[in-house]
Amino acid sequence: MGGLRGGIDLGGTKIQAVVVDEAGSVLSSVRRPTPKDRGPEGVAEAMADVLRDAAHDAGAETSGLVGVGVGSPGAVDEASGVVARATNVLPEWVGPYALAEELSRRLGAPTTIGNDVQVATDAEFQLGAGRHYRSLLGVFWGTGVGGGLVLDGRGWVGRGAAGEIGHMVYRRRGAHCPCGRRGCMEAYAGRGAMEAHARAMADRGVSTKLFKIMEQRGRTRLASAVWATALAERDRLATRLVDRAVKAIATTVASAVNLLDVEAVVIGGGMGVRLGAPYVERIEQAMQPHLFVSDRPPAVHLAALGDTGGAIGAALLVGASPAGAQVA
Amino acid sequence: MGGLRGGIDLGGTKIQAVVVDEAGSVLSSVRRPTPKDRGPEGVAEAMADVLRDAAHDAGAETSGLVGVGVGSPGAVDEASGVVARATNVLPEWVGPYALAEELSRRLGAPTTIGNDVQVATDAEFQLGAGRHYRSLLGVFWGTGVGGGLVLDGRGWVGRGAAGEIGHMVYRRRGAHCPCGRRGCMEAYAGRGAMEAHARAMADRGVSTKLFKIMEQRGRTRLASAVWATALAERDRLATRLVDRAVKAIATTVASAVNLLDVEAVVIGGGMGVRLGAPYVERIEQAMQPHLFVSDRPPAVHLAALGDTGGAIGAALLVGASPAGAQVA
Repeated sequence: MGGLRGGIDLGGTKIQAVVVDEAGSVLSSVRRPTPKDRGPEGVAEAMADVLRDAAHDAGAETSGLVGVGVGSPGAVDEASGVVARATNVLPEWVGPYALAEELSRRLGAPTTIGNDVQVATDAEFQLGAGRHYRSLLGVFWGTGVGGGLVLDGRGWVGRGAAGEIGHMVYRRRGAHCPCGRRGCMEAYAGRGAMEAHARAMADRGVSTKLFKIMEQRGRTRLASAVWATALAERDRLATRLVDRAVKAIATTVASAVNLLDVEAVVIGGGMGVRLGAPYVERIEQAMQPHLFVSDRPPAVHLAALGDTGGAIGAALLVGASPAGAQVA
Repeated sequence: MGGLRGGIDLGGTKIQAVVVDEAGSVLSSVRRPTPKDRGPEGVAEAMADVLRDAAHDAGAETSGLVGVGVGSPGAVDEASGVVARATNVLPEWVGPYALAEELSRRLGAPTTIGNDVQVATDAEFQLGAGRHYRSLLGVFWGTGVGGGLVLDGRGWVGRGAAGEIGHMVYRRRGAHCPCGRRGCMEAYAGRGAMEAHARAMADRGVSTKLFKIMEQRGRTRLASAVWATALAERDRLATRLVDRAVKAIATTVASAVNLLDVEAVVIGGGMGVRLGAPYVERIEQAMQPHLFVSDRPPAVHLAALGDTGGAIGAALLVGASPAGAQVA
């Protein structure tokens, strides 16, 4: 049991846990909705439960794991394991919460926390679509659009908040972004902003199947699968909004490449994974006119680890940091 | 004489040479126009002459220098010392020219070549306004707008072409850029694009003192000093175009900061140095609404080494690379 590690990806809608072996191969995977009614404490409890089930499926106890890694949104203090401003998990999760300490106690295993997008990027770099490169931009197209960087083989987090490609300015004084600013790329490409835009258009009488598909699937939000179905049914509004998102992502990623000249771009996230290779190819093509060194574009790949990349990357935190190497 | 190093900054209008001691202190500095009529060979000859004069002023022979560094525009192959596509030096300098070899031969000292903007950034990082930081974005606002990066204490050049902040997309399908693309930040903020715009406006009858000031100063281009004078005289067109440039730079730099979360931004280049601190402050203020982590903005400084930063940075190449450590 010595080499097993746990990984938890904490998202706004779901908690995904995996147990991996020393090589990073997934032995078990469990996913459950994020509880919204019991505060950060309730979220921590659910995270522990989900990982416990994953460990059980792998024939282990959590106390027998070498360690547990967590990919978390919000402001993550890796040294202390404290998470603040995780408002897309819970609107009330504003102040600091000692998530690592709480999980270590519940699981009987040392717990390390990292930024969700950065650990997903690290996973693609170490085990996924980025494994043949030394420098990489990870783009996670979901409710928002997150980014992660690997430069010369190491994750780059700047002062702790690097990678915010979704908040690069796409159009000065442009659309309102969920972050409160204007014209961010995410205001055009984030699934959250796309849904708000679709609702506003539908309210104004623009015809679309998006909300009918949503209801048929028993959803209350325009999940990635809803967009994919609407595109397959050639829904005009869906097509127009996804086209706009592709342009916004491509233009911003091209700007990032002009600044960083990375070898590769990996596109994942709920929308990225669901829409898949044809849309990654469209992003790649739409980048081309904006690339300064146009005869040597970066490789552009679909994320290879799919939905579990975040949890796998979280597990890779174990042993990667001094904290993760200690046994509780 | 053992510790002296030469540095040459090759520009489109001038060649700047310095001789520095082991601490990087400037012992002598010579500047001369870049010859336009004798091809890359003539440029290399002039570069050798300028450095020879600087060495003479420092009481040395070039053959007694530990080495010589060159900051060059275009596509620089650092390993071979070959420079191609230096078209802003000479329109005909498209193919590769073995500049390091030629200079080594003429000077009797080993010569190392680096990217002009990157060496200027390194100089600010080691000796200038960036010396208190570990990560840095250098922005050189001149005819074009170049950028250089220092991340965790080391220059980041990507696959050799990183730092092209002037070609991040400021406005998709926007103004035509000298690079041939559209909407690049440089198309709004580069002095070359600003001059083209001012000429077009003047041709359309917009009143401006810019070209009168240019003639009074015996210039054929709108040099940075011409813009500075026009601003001081409250010329409306000059004010409007500089305001537009400030916005374009600030928006793009804020995007770069959101992506990289560097500690500091250093603004230099002909326009940056000439317009000075008040304009750096305006750029800093105009960045603020676009910063994702708005309560912890990066420090924004005026370049401390002024016009000679590029040549000083070039001298710092000596000893920094294996090539520079060898004696010819």
